[in-house]
Amino acid sequence: MKYINGSITAPLGFKAGATKCGIKYSNRYDLAVIVSDVPASCAGVFTRNRIKAAPVLVSREHVRDGNARAIIVNSGNANACTGENGIEAAMAMAGETARLIKCDPAEVLVASTGVIGHVFPIEKILNCLPALGSNLSVKGNHQSAEAIMTTDTVPKETAIETEIDGAVVRIGAIAKGSGMICPDMATMLCFITTDADIETSALKKALRQAVETSFNCITVDGDMSSNDTVLILANGKARNSKIRSRTKASEIFAEALRTVCLKMAMSIVKDGEGATKFITIKINGAAGKGEARQVGLAIANSPLVKTAFFGEDPNWGRIICAAGYSGVPIEEANITIVLNDSVIFEHGRINDFDERELRKKMAQKNITLEVDLGMGKAEKTIYTTDMSYEYIKINAEYTT
Amino acid sequence: MKYINGSITAPLGFKAGATKCGIKYSNRYDLAVIVSDVPASCAGVFTRNRIKAAPVLVSREHVRDGNARAIIVNSGNANACTGENGIEAAMAMAGETARLIKCDPAEVLVASTGVIGHVFPIEKILNCLPALGSNLSVKGNHQSAEAIMTTDTVPKETAIETEIDGAVVRIGAIAKGSGMICPDMATMLCFITTDADIETSALKKALRQAVETSFNCITVDGDMSSNDTVLILANGKARNSKIRSRTKASEIFAEALRTVCLKMAMSIVKDGEGATKFITIKINGAAGKGEARQVGLAIANSPLVKTAFFGEDPNWGRIICAAGYSGVPIEEANITIVLNDSVIFEHGRINDFDERELRKKMAQKNITLEVDLGMGKAEKTIYTTDMSYEYIKINAEYTT
Repeated sequence: MKYINGSITAPLGFKAGATKCGIKYSNRYDLAVIVSDVPASCAGVFTRNRIKAAPVLVSREHVRDGNARAIIVNSGNANACTGENGIEAAMAMAGETARLIKCDPAEVLVASTGVIGHVFPIEKILNCLPALGSNLSVKGNHQSAEAIMTTDTVPKETAIETEIDGAVVRIGAIAKGSGMICPDMATMLCFITTDADIETSALKKALRQAVETSFNCITVDGDMSSNDTVLILANGKARNSKIRSRTKASEIFAEALRTVCLKMAMSIVKDGEGATKFITIKINGAAGKGEARQVGLAIANSPLVKTAFFGEDPNWGRIICAAGYSGVPIEEANITIVLNDSVIFEHGRINDFDERELRKKMAQKNITLEVDLGMGKAEKTIYTTDMSYEYIKINAEYTT
Repeated sequence: MKYINGSITAPLGFKAGATKCGIKYSNRYDLAVIVSDVPASCAGVFTRNRIKAAPVLVSREHVRDGNARAIIVNSGNANACTGENGIEAAMAMAGETARLIKCDPAEVLVASTGVIGHVFPIEKILNCLPALGSNLSVKGNHQSAEAIMTTDTVPKETAIETEIDGAVVRIGAIAKGSGMICPDMATMLCFITTDADIETSALKKALRQAVETSFNCITVDGDMSSNDTVLILANGKARNSKIRSRTKASEIFAEALRTVCLKMAMSIVKDGEGATKFITIKINGAAGKGEARQVGLAIANSPLVKTAFFGEDPNWGRIICAAGYSGVPIEEANITIVLNDSVIFEHGRINDFDERELRKKMAQKNITLEVDLGMGKAEKTIYTTDMSYEYIKINAEYTT
C-alpha cells in the first residue's frame, strides 16, 4: 500500500469538476460533481442526528440498492430544516445530474454543507449544472475539494494504491470539515472513489468499519451536524477478481479504506476551528470498546480539558474528572494516566513525576494522553483539538 | 415569604466565622465554620461524578443519620483524588471541629473546593481551627461567604423568612461556584441553615426537590465537579410546630427552600466564568421531565450555541441541531422555537419573523429561548451562560 498523487480521480474511470454558482459567496467554487464512467457499487454512512438535512434523506434512499453513478455536492447552504421544498431541491439536483450523464436519478447521491434553515437556492444550481456537466475531467479533483470547503483553511485530498489478488487497486478521497461540528458553517463530508471490483455487501461493511475507527473517533467540539455524510463509489475498473466478503482480499481492501478514512479524519482535526494542538487520546483497559469511546469523548469534549491544553497546562485533575462524569462506572483506584510519556497518576495514586519536564512537553503541537481504566481489555483512540480564542472568534463573530 | 438581611446566621441559633489559613493564597479567607447552637436535622445532596472528593465521601456518611451540628469548609484545595490520606484529612477536619464545639465527629459535615489531586495541607487547617472555633458569631456570615470563593467574582448570600402555622421561620444560604464546572478552580457548593423545626424525612425530600429545579438546572460548561455539595441544617429554634411530610406546612417550607436554592443557583450562573449573558432555556411539550432536561442541557452545553449567543447571533440552526443530537427522539415537524418572543420556527417551518428586530434584542443581557418539542406536556427550565474569550482566558491562562 502506498500513497499516490491526486484524490477522487486517481482511481480509473472517475471524472470530477466544480463551478462557481454564487450560492453564498460570488467568486468561489461551491458546486462539485463526481462521476463514474460506468455504474458503480456504492455505500454511505450518514449523521445520527435526529435533524437530518434533505440531501441526507435523499442520499440514504439512493444508496439503498447499492448502485450509483455520481455524487453532486454544494457548499454555502446545508439544505437542512427546509421541509418539503428542501427535499424537492435535493431531488432536482439528482434529477438534473442524471439527465446530463444519462442515468437514473436514483443513481445520483446528493450532499450539501453550509448555513442551516435558510431557503435553498436551487435555481442557481440548476442554472450552472449543464456547463459543469460538460466540463468534467480527471483533473477536476482539486477544484472539487475546494468547492466543498466552508470554514476549512485547506482542501483535504488523498489517494493510495494497493495490490489485491495481483491487481492494482486505487482508493481516493476528498473531505471537508473543520471539526465534527454542527450546522451553520461546518459539517463533515467525505467522498471516496475506488476502481476496485467489490461486492456491495463487502463494500458496505468495509466502509462502516473504516468510519467507526476514523470519522467516529474525532471531535472538535462534540456538536454533531445535520449533514454529516461519507459516500464511496466502487466502479470495478481495476479489473481485479471481484472482492467478496470474509476473504483475504476484503481484508486488504478494508485496511486500505481505513487508511484513507483515517488520513481524512486526521486532516479534519488538524484543520479544526481555532486548533493549536493535535491531541491523541488513547483509552485502554476498558470493559468494552463503547465504554472506551465514551470516556475518550467525555475527555475530548470537556471545555476545561480543551482550554487547559490550549494553556499548555498538564491539568490531569480535569482529565480524571471528565472521565468521572462520562457515565462509565470507572474506579479511581484502578486508573493510570500517562501524559506525553509522563506517568502522572498510577493505580489511583499521584505519581512523583518531573512536572517541569512535563510542562515543557506540553508546548509541543502533538500531545498524547493515555488513560488506562483498569477494567478490561478494550481500547479506543480519539483524536481532538484544544479550544482557543480563535474558536470563539470563528463561531461568535462570523455570524450567519 | 420575604427576603431579609444576612444569610446563614439569619435563622435563630446559628453562628459562623472564617479565617485565613494560607491554603493557596496568603491573605484571603479560605476556611469557614458554620455551627448550630443545638443539634440540628440535616440533609445533603452530592455530586454524581464517579470521582468523588474525600470530603464528599465523609459528609455522605455523616448526613446519613439526619443529625448534625456543624459544617467546616475550605477553599484552595479540593482534597480530591488524594486517596487514603485525603479521607484521613477530611476526618481530621470533622474531628477537630467536633472537639472545639463539643459534639460527636459524625455530627460535623465537611466540604472542600479548589485544585484537585494535590496533597491536602491539613496541618495549616488544624493549626488555624482553634482560634476560629472561639471566634464564631452571628456576624460571621459574610466572611464565610468570602472564604468559599475561588474564581467567583462576588460572594453569594441570601436569606428569607416565611410564616408556617403561625410561627416565623427563616432560611439562609451561602454558595460558591462560577459554574457547575469541574475541579481545579471551581466547584458548586451551597450551605443552607434554617431555624425551622422539621422532620428529617421532610427536610430531605424538600432539599432533593429544591435541588432538582435549581442547582440541577444550571450549567456553565457541562463539566460536573468531583466536589459539588449542597447541605442544610435545621435546628428548630423558630419553635414552630414540627413540620411533617405531606402537610400544608411542608409545602410552604419546600417552596421557601426552593426559592432560596433558585436564588443561589441563578447567582452562580450570573457569575459564570466569562459570562456576558444570562440565558433562560424553557423546554416545553416534552414526553417527560427527564427528556425536557436532556434537550435543554444539550442546547445549553453546545459550544456552538454558546458562542453564537456571545456573538449576539440568533442562530436557531445551531439550537435545533443540538436538540437533534440530545438523544431524545424529537421530530423536526413538531418543533417550535421562540427566541426573545420572536417565533422563528413553527411546527417544523421557518417563520416569517423580523430578523432585524430579533438581532437587536440579542444585545440584551437576559435572553429567553423557548423550544416546544410538540411531544407531550412535560417542561423544564435550564439556566446558562454564553461562552466568551474570557472563559478561555480564565481556564487556559490561570493554570494550576
